[in-house]
Amino acid sequence: MRYVLKVCYDGTNYCGWQVQKNGITVQGELLRAAEEAFGEKVVITASGRTDAGVHAAGQICHMDMERLVPPERVAAALNTHLPQDISVLKSASAPTGFDANRSAKKKTYIYSVYFSDCRNPLKNRYAVWVQGSADIEKMREAAALFVGVHDFKAYCASGSSVKTTVREIFSLEVFEREGLINFAVCGGGFLYNMVRTMVGTILGYAGGRIEREDVINSLANGDRKLVGKTMPAYGLTLYSVDYGMELFKS
Amino acid sequence: MRYVLKVCYDGTNYCGWQVQKNGITVQGELLRAAEEAFGEKVVITASGRTDAGVHAAGQICHMDMERLVPPERVAAALNTHLPQDISVLKSASAPTGFDANRSAKKKTYIYSVYFSDCRNPLKNRYAVWVQGSADIEKMREAAALFVGVHDFKAYCASGSSVKTTVREIFSLEVFEREGLINFAVCGGGFLYNMVRTMVGTILGYAGGRIEREDVINSLANGDRKLVGKTMPAYGLTLYSVDYGMELFKS
Repeated sequence: MRYVLKVCYDGTNYCGWQVQKNGITVQGELLRAAEEAFGEKVVITASGRTDAGVHAAGQICHMDMERLVPPERVAAALNTHLPQDISVLKSASAPTGFDANRSAKKKTYIYSVYFSDCRNPLKNRYAVWVQGSADIEKMREAAALFVGVHDFKAYCASGSSVKTTVREIFSLEVFEREGLINFAVCGGGFLYNMVRTMVGTILGYAGGRIEREDVINSLANGDRKLVGKTMPAYGLTLYSVDYGMELFKS
Repeated sequence: MRYVLKVCYDGTNYCGWQVQKNGITVQGELLRAAEEAFGEKVVITASGRTDAGVHAAGQICHMDMERLVPPERVAAALNTHLPQDISVLKSASAPTGFDANRSAKKKTYIYSVYFSDCRNPLKNRYAVWVQGSADIEKMREAAALFVGVHDFKAYCASGSSVKTTVREIFSLEVFEREGLINFAVCGGGFLYNMVRTMVGTILGYAGGRIEREDVINSLANGDRKLVGKTMPAYGLTLYSVDYGMELFKS
C-alpha cells in the first residue's frame, strides 16, 4: 500500500534529504523510523531532494509498505521514532497512481533574509543576515525578471546533469514579515542551487552591484559571470508542494 | 568608563547568563570577547540573570572598562570575538549613575507556545509544543488574574532566597502571531521560574485542569499545589528592559 506523508524538518544538522553513505539524512531517518515503527523495510520517495542545510515546512513524500496501518495513524507512529528536528505533520493513503515526485505540479520555496547592522542570533537559524538596508521595490523589480519560462543555465550549479535547464517560474513574491524579507518562489521545478542563486542575484541588483541588463542577459545567454552569489542553504525552506488536489483531510 | 550594551542571544547552548565554574555562559563569552577585543579584563553586569536555555532579544548590560573606545564601536568590536549565537546589537556610553541592574524599571518577557497535533521542528526552537487546541479567551481570563501587586510565592522555585516574594505585574498580554501564542509579561521584577510557572498555570486553566478559584487562592496563600507546571526554559525570551529613558540613538 502507498501512503502519502507531509514532512517538516529543520535541515541544519542533515546532509540533505537523500540517503548517502556518509552522513545523516532526512530520508535515512524516515526509513529507520519506519522500520522501527512497522518492522518492515519501506521505500520512501520525496517530491524532490533538498540540499544539505535546507529546511522543509511541507515536504511531501510517498511511502510504500506491505503492512496495512490506518493511514492517519502513520504520522504519529513515525514521530515516536524520529528525532526532534523531523516531524511527520500528516499522513493519508495515497490517491490512485500518485507519485510524490512525478505527480508534483508546483513547488514553492521561501528564502529568508534580514537586513541589519549586525547578526541577530534569534533570526539567524532560518534566515541570512545581509548588511545594509533593504530596498524592497528594487528587489521586486529584479524578481519580476525571473517570472515565466527561461533557460536558467546561469543559475544552475556546475556539474549537475540535467536534460534541460529550461524551467518555468509561476511567481516570485517579495514580502516583509516579522523583520524578515522573504522571497517566495513558485515554479514547476528547480535546478540545483537555482533559488539560492536567483536570490543572490536579486540582492546584487538591489545593492547596485548587478545591472538590470545583466539579469536579462544571464537568462538569454546562460552566462554565470553575470549572476549574483549563491546564498547559503540555511535561508531556504521548501514551503509546499502542489499536486492539484487535496492530499489530506484538513 | 561605563558602556551600555544591548545583547541578543539564543540561549539553547548556554548554562544561562551568569558565569559559573562548570559550563559555558553568556556573561562568560562576553567577558572573554571583551578581553580579546580590548586587551583588558572588564566587568559586565546585566539587568538580571537569565536561566539556562532562556533567550534574549534585548538584554541590557553595562560594561566597566578603563580603555576609552568610541562607544558606538564597542558592539562591532565585541561581535568579531563572539560566537554566532550571541550578538551585541547596540552600544553607547552609559548615562551618569546608570546601573543595568539597579536602574531597570520594567522588564518584558515573552513566552511562546504553539498548539498542534504534533511537534513542528521549525517552530520548536523558541516555542513549546502544546497538544490540543488553543482557547485564547480562556487564556486571557487567567492572565488577567496575575496583573497587579501579588505575592508570587507559589510561582517561585523552591530554594531561592529572596527577601520578599511580592512582585508587580504591569501587564500580561496574550496574542497570536505567525502560528504562535505569545504571552508578553511586563513587570517590575520576577522570581526564579515565575514567568514559566505563570504560563503553565494559564495553560492549565485554559485546558480545564485548574480552576479560576485555584489561581486566585494561589496568589492569596502561596500554595504551590494549586498552580500549573513550570514550562520549559526554551520557550522564554527576555524581550526588553525599560529604564525610563532612551539608552541608544536609534
